[in-house]
Order: sequence, then structure tokens, then C-alpha cells
Amino acid sequence: MMRMPTAEVVKKPPSDAAKATDTVMSNLEAVCRGRDLGQLAERMGALAALTRWDMAEVETGLKDVDRGERVVQQAAHLLLDLGGKRLRPLCVALASRLGNGFGAEARECAIAVELVHCATLLHDDVVDDSDTRRGAAAARTVFGNAASIFAGDWLLVESLRRVRNTGVPGALERLLDIVDEMILAESRQLEARGRVDTDEATYFAIVEGKTAALFRWAMYAGARAGGLAPADADRLEAYGRHLGVAFQLIDDLLDYVGVASKTGKALFTDLREGKMTHPVLVARDRDPSVRELLEILRASEDDAATSALLRAMKSTGAIEETRTLAQWHAAQAIAQLDNFDEGPAKDALLTVARACVHRER
Amino acid sequence: MMRMPTAEVVKKPPSDAAKATDTVMSNLEAVCRGRDLGQLAERMGALAALTRWDMAEVETGLKDVDRGERVVQQAAHLLLDLGGKRLRPLCVALASRLGNGFGAEARECAIAVELVHCATLLHDDVVDDSDTRRGAAAARTVFGNAASIFAGDWLLVESLRRVRNTGVPGALERLLDIVDEMILAESRQLEARGRVDTDEATYFAIVEGKTAALFRWAMYAGARAGGLAPADADRLEAYGRHLGVAFQLIDDLLDYVGVASKTGKALFTDLREGKMTHPVLVARDRDPSVRELLEILRASEDDAATSALLRAMKSTGAIEETRTLAQWHAAQAIAQLDNFDEGPAKDALLTVARACVHRER
Repeated sequence: MMRMPTAEVVKKPPSDAAKATDTVMSNLEAVCRGRDLGQLAERMGALAALTRWDMAEVETGLKDVDRGERVVQQAAHLLLDLGGKRLRPLCVALASRLGNGFGAEARECAIAVELVHCATLLHDDVVDDSDTRRGAAAARTVFGNAASIFAGDWLLVESLRRVRNTGVPGALERLLDIVDEMILAESRQLEARGRVDTDEATYFAIVEGKTAALFRWAMYAGARAGGLAPADADRLEAYGRHLGVAFQLIDDLLDYVGVASKTGKALFTDLREGKMTHPVLVARDRDPSVRELLEILRASEDDAATSALLRAMKSTGAIEETRTLAQWHAAQAIAQLDNFDEGPAKDALLTVARACVHRER
Repeated sequence: MMRMPTAEVVKKPPSDAAKATDTVMSNLEAVCRGRDLGQLAERMGALAALTRWDMAEVETGLKDVDRGERVVQQAAHLLLDLGGKRLRPLCVALASRLGNGFGAEARECAIAVELVHCATLLHDDVVDDSDTRRGAAAARTVFGNAASIFAGDWLLVESLRRVRNTGVPGALERLLDIVDEMILAESRQLEARGRVDTDEATYFAIVEGKTAALFRWAMYAGARAGGLAPADADRLEAYGRHLGVAFQLIDDLLDYVGVASKTGKALFTDLREGKMTHPVLVARDRDPSVRELLEILRASEDDAATSALLRAMKSTGAIEETRTLAQWHAAQAIAQLDNFDEGPAKDALLTVARACVHRER
């Protein structure tokens, strides 16, 4: 199935990579305990134990992505080496573990999905004129816009070549379609930028393409790499879709109710970039005065308008509405797991869906 | 071999597309006659007759690339619809005609190679801050940098999906490797930008990756789509490589000796963008005073330095050196055709290689 020189599967990854993974997991555990979600914290511990080595292998693989002399490679590694939640690779790993396990092909798909994600971030940062990413200087501020554009191109192609080399049935074909969806959604978001009248249909079309599509592929590719049948892979793809939508809805909430130091980005970033988020859409539809506040905030930072918007988002129940919708999508994701045998991988996927709507970063 | 819904091969393409192709060809013919290259002009006439319908089909295919509502699609079509030399699709067509002909798979590869080329132009224009392209407003000036970046991403993925759908053996695999080479060469060019000390090795590494690589793929894919054996495809790939280098060397010359209205770009564009061209490298290595002129011209437009540089390029024989090297590469390209049977397709490839070093646009 693999056409590349068979890389040895690292069973004991370097301790620094394992440590990095442990930090992510224990952060999540701490969040859960802090919110009196004891049972979830316990589940997170089991998830961490199950995936610790898988994720450390992914981390090692990402560090080993070609570090040549080219500036695009340096720009790409500036982002890759910063770490991140690695939620998409986690999806690949867990889907493969519902089948015959996290082998070399699954590991390559897990690395590839993070490379695609990072490719989009490198282009997004240029498009959004962002100075920071994941709490550090963005590649474009260090190496320039040109390097960030070509680095995104390079990571995309690097990802496609890896997936090609795995020979996982359908994986490359589907990834090309998924990336097409992602780009058209980016375009749609560009067109909707700064439009306070963006409707829910447009909002969800953007979320499906920009966020859910790649989660879908992560689950699909992991399932096929793990030897699952196409019908099972399709069910897991549906899990990925709902998880992705839930993830984005919570991301939207964190733009308003999160704490800057935890999310690594300032509050109201989305709004300042002209992007409408779900709770703002809801508040606008329920309270006619919100539209005017959005017009004010689109033009400039305004403390009075900011406070008024926050109040409206609470008083209209917009924040709760978005959270409820995220919970519904998490439940839909979980429902896709019904036909799979009980076991640690299924437990872990249940945990991921539940934890997703409780995350604070 | 084709997995897409089999599109009917257009035997009688719309007259406007055929007319556009005829215009390109008759321009080339006129150039040849004007330079007293009567025999070449006659050969160009035969080439035009052979490829007229093939190229009209490509033109129709490019016009039919998804015209959805998205701004990326509009930005992409702004460039696609402008036309161009279509030399890469011509290579696909002629390589396929050395085999069993220009069928549906070859046509899709011909369209795909132009899409990859246009994808790189859309990103290059952002990177170079270019306002015009092919004599018209660049997509970035009409739709913005963000749309131009995503439009480039979209065309690349659109191209890969088309090649995937043809099922031509090795074509997708090799295209991914070629695009990787192209991006690393773009990076190298970026690093060399504004450096008047760029050496010949770096210059040729950039040319091989940025220009020759895609010509290589055009010939390879055309050959495989036409049913030729891998060894024959490799020979034609070598033809593409030498043709690409010759093409770039002449492009470099046109930056200095061309006439702005013919090339559709202003003179000295490359130099102003900080790109070293071959005749400048040669002049610099033969005349120590040239380095200083380049430093002056890098900082600002300076009529005296411009004139002095033009004089040095002539007095050092740099222009003739570059032309001679281009002719050598054209001859190397032609030598790759030795083992193929005589016939109109082989004649046409001979003509393309010869015409390439006589072009004025």
C-alpha cells in the first residue's frame, strides 16, 4: 500500500515531542476539572493515554518535514514548529484505531492533514494582514508576504504528495475535492467580508467549506488507512463534518467570551477582520439595534459599541443559542458512532466531541 | 482510462476560438516572414494547420472552466480569457500526436498545464506587485490580492483534479513533483531578488524549476496520454526541458531588446523586479563596471545607467551569448526527436524549437 521507502514506525518518540503532547492533554484535563466536569476530565485522561504515542509520532513527523535551505521551508517550519491543538491529526489517529490501528499510512495522512491546515493559515495570514499566529509572529511578518504565499503553496503540494505516496484508496482523490471546497469557501468568506447582512445560509456554507471539510477528510482518510469499509468511512466522515461545525461554533464564541491569553488571539478579532460569527448573526436577527452597532464597530474600535454588543449578545440569548447548536452538532457526531464496536477508540471519539464544546482555547 | 463523464471531443470548435488560434499562428508566421525566415514561415503554416483544431479545443476548454459565482472564479477567468501563447498546451498536443493522437485525455492534460501556468501567474503578480499581465489589468488590481491568491490556489487544485480524472498513467504523480520543483524555484528566485551577485548556477536552478519543469510535464503527459511508452515519454520530457530553457533565455533577451508593444510588458521589467537575467549575468561577468550600473538601477530608474547597461550588453557580446545558448538548447531539444518516426507531429516539434529562438513576443 505504501510506495515510499517504509519509514520505521516510531514506538518511543523523542521525549520532547511526547512532552508537548502531554502538555496539550493536561491543559485540556485542567480545563475540565476547573469547570467541575470531573467525568470528562477522567475521559480526557484515557484519551491522552490512548493517543499519546500516536500524537508524538505526528509531532516528530511534522518536525521532520523537509528543512531545506529555501525560505519557503523556513517560513513553513516557523508555523509548524509552534505546535497547535493538532485536532485534525487526532481525528485521523482515532478513526484508524476504529479499524486496524495507526500504522504508517495513517500516520502520513495525519501529518498531511495538519500540513493542509497550516497551508491555509499561511495564506489566510496574508489575506487578513495578520501579524500574529498561535501567539507568535506570523510567518509573513518574519519572512514577508511572498514567502508566506509560496510556503502555503509548498505545504499544500507536500501534503498531496504524502497522501499520494500512502496509496490509501480514495484518499488523494477526496483530498483534492476537499481542498477545492475549502478554497471556494475562502472565496465566499472574502465576498461576505465586512457585510453585516450576511445570512445564516452563507455563514454555514463558509463553515462547511472552511472548517468542516478538512475534519471530514481527516476521519475518512483515517478510516480508510485503518482498513475500514467505505460505508464505515462515510459514517466517520459525517462525524468529522459535525465535529467541525461544532468546533467552529465554539471558536466563534471564544472570539467574544474567551480570554485573550488562553486563545492566543485578541478578542473580537473576527469582527475586526470583517467576519461575521454565529452569535453575532443571532443577536442581529433578534435585536434590530445590533446592526447599527456592527456598522460602528466595522468602521472603528468603539468602547461603548463594544459593551453594547456584548450586552445584546447576552440579552438576546445569542451566546446560549450558539452553544446549544454546537452541542447539537456534537451529539450528531456522536450518533454516527452507533454502529461501531465499543472500545477505547470509540470512547475517545465520544470524548473529543464532548470536550470540543467545553474547550476554552 | 477516463473516469470523468466522457466529454464529446469537439471536432468543429466555435469559430471565435479557432480565429484566436489562427491569430496567434499568423502573427508568428508574419514575424518569420518579416525576418526573412521564409522556410520557417512555411513550416509555421504547416504547424498551424496541424494544431488548429487541437488548440481551438483547448481554448474552448479553458473558456468552459467552471464560471461559478465565486470571486476566485471571476479572477481566474479574467486571466484565462485573455488568451496567451498557449505554448505548454501546444507541447501536450504535439507530444500526443507522436503517439495515437490528441484524444480526450490529452486535451484535459493540455488544459491542465495552462491552468497550472496561470495559477503561478496569479501568485507571481501578487508577489511582484504587478499591475498588468498580458497587456491588461492583472487580476489583483481588479479583484484584490486576496482573490488573486485564492484564485491561484483554485486553479492549481482544478488542474490536479482534471489530471486525476484522466487517469493517464503517472501524470498526476509527476505533476505533483513538478509543482513542488516550481515552488522551490520560486522561493530561490525570491531569495536571489535584488542580488546583483546571483551566480549562473542559481540562475539555471531557477530557470529549470520555474520554466523548464512545466514544459517537461507538458511533453511527458502528452506522450503518456498518446499511449507512448515511458522511455519515449522520457525523451520527450528532455525535449520539454531544453525547450523551456531556450524559451526562458529568449524571454530574458526580450526584456532588453524586445519592443514593449510586442511583448505586452515594459522593457527592463525583470531588472526593476530585482530579477537577474542571463544577458545581464554574462555582461556583469565580462565587464566589472556593470555591477555598479546594476546597483544604480536597482535603486532607481536612471537613464544614463540604462544606456550604459545596454551598451555593455552589446559590447561584451552578452546578448549574442544568450542567443547562442538558447540556440544550443533548441538544438538539444531537437536531438531528442531522433528516434521518432518522421511525420507531421515530429516536423511540428522541430518547428516549435526553431521558432522559439526567433520569437519576438
